[in-house]
Amino acid sequence: MPRYALKIEYDGGPFAGWQRQAQGQVSVQGVIEEALARLEPGAHTIAAAGRTDAGVHATGQVAHCDLVREWEPFRVGEALNHHLRPHPVSVLAVARVGDDFHARFSAIERRYLFRLVVRRAPATHDRGHVWQVKNPLDLAAMREGAAHLVGLHDFTTFRASICQAKSPVKTLDEIAVAELPYPGGTEYRFTLRARSFLHNQVRSIVGTLERVGAGAWAPGDVKAALEARDRAACGPVSPPDGLYLTGVGYPADPF
Amino acid sequence: MPRYALKIEYDGGPFAGWQRQAQGQVSVQGVIEEALARLEPGAHTIAAAGRTDAGVHATGQVAHCDLVREWEPFRVGEALNHHLRPHPVSVLAVARVGDDFHARFSAIERRYLFRLVVRRAPATHDRGHVWQVKNPLDLAAMREGAAHLVGLHDFTTFRASICQAKSPVKTLDEIAVAELPYPGGTEYRFTLRARSFLHNQVRSIVGTLERVGAGAWAPGDVKAALEARDRAACGPVSPPDGLYLTGVGYPADPF
Repeated sequence: MPRYALKIEYDGGPFAGWQRQAQGQVSVQGVIEEALARLEPGAHTIAAAGRTDAGVHATGQVAHCDLVREWEPFRVGEALNHHLRPHPVSVLAVARVGDDFHARFSAIERRYLFRLVVRRAPATHDRGHVWQVKNPLDLAAMREGAAHLVGLHDFTTFRASICQAKSPVKTLDEIAVAELPYPGGTEYRFTLRARSFLHNQVRSIVGTLERVGAGAWAPGDVKAALEARDRAACGPVSPPDGLYLTGVGYPADPF
Repeated sequence: MPRYALKIEYDGGPFAGWQRQAQGQVSVQGVIEEALARLEPGAHTIAAAGRTDAGVHATGQVAHCDLVREWEPFRVGEALNHHLRPHPVSVLAVARVGDDFHARFSAIERRYLFRLVVRRAPATHDRGHVWQVKNPLDLAAMREGAAHLVGLHDFTTFRASICQAKSPVKTLDEIAVAELPYPGGTEYRFTLRARSFLHNQVRSIVGTLERVGAGAWAPGDVKAALEARDRAACGPVSPPDGLYLTGVGYPADPF
């Protein structure tokens, strides 16, 4: 069966997460599989590079699907976007790929963005799209704390207890923190890049770095928490609102 | 009575516009006046620098109100934001101003942003927050068309027939067009600056420039349309979704 790679954007707000759920819960995977069934009747099962949690967004999720017919990739995207309405899920690009392409297992890089906004007045346009705090944050301290996490480490501290990964040892290739103006406040953008992430790793890291920025933790406490290899040593896990899966890397970009 | 200037942000999507409406229609002015009545019982009437239409957003609207008590400005903002929930309206700043300050009549500059996104896949996170078209746009052509509009002109062509301004003659101080990357597409940001604008002027201008970008109009056609001083010579008026009142200028910034 011909295989297609899909680049997908979604607003995670109304969904129980990426993964198809028990009846009554709407998932991103579920609505895409239903749209595929409008193209080719029958059951469809798609696999994604990142199984995002409830409320987590994507601007560059990648999944693959197998279809019976040889479709023109552009037409697959147009048809899926038609059938996906009114869900806030869009297929940005479709590519014909080989049978050896697997959206999850072929991926060699995941990129995430986390948007953290500091201001007192509640977000309006960005409600559900940013994590908002009221206390001012120290950019230099957050950068210093973040630097302790780059490289090969045992990330047990920054991993959900329900994480199913075989090993907590991962290489975090990059974590950058940028400060931007925001109406009536300040925005901090965290960009993280790794071959793969543990469950809740980004939210655990950002939640901890926010405590560093607020002055409740010293930057060196991040190093101590990492070295503790103990989930209890982690700072609070951030809410999902500000988290975006922005891109997935493959040995050869299918798009 | 002590007068206060309010800097206000809102998502225009759920509102019938800024101005208080007949019963049953929710306006931004109406919900702010209701919040003020929670601070000080009784009827409140506030005036704003820009009476935005239904669906138009703001990140820097300015209004003023008169209260009986001498409130600490910070507390007015905190209380209003509390009472404004769950409406997507936030007070970003409050300042105590003199009786001669009038949010509308004292203003010497209005600034607008218009977000226009080119891509085929429907917007998800930015639904209702951008105007989306599918056809590619020519940045240089739009800039060339826009240049004809800068300066002192009779803007009858770019003015709603229901516009109540005494004169169609206005000075457009700036109109800039920037091109930015957007997931799966391209975003164009129009920034406009003038002492004051006519009703629907920004949307009429952006709708016309989109036609120039699409190649349906030549850049010089904008000049001809302006010189026609005829509403019928205008291009299509853009939808409100991408329009933001970003700031208001006063001889002395009250905030």
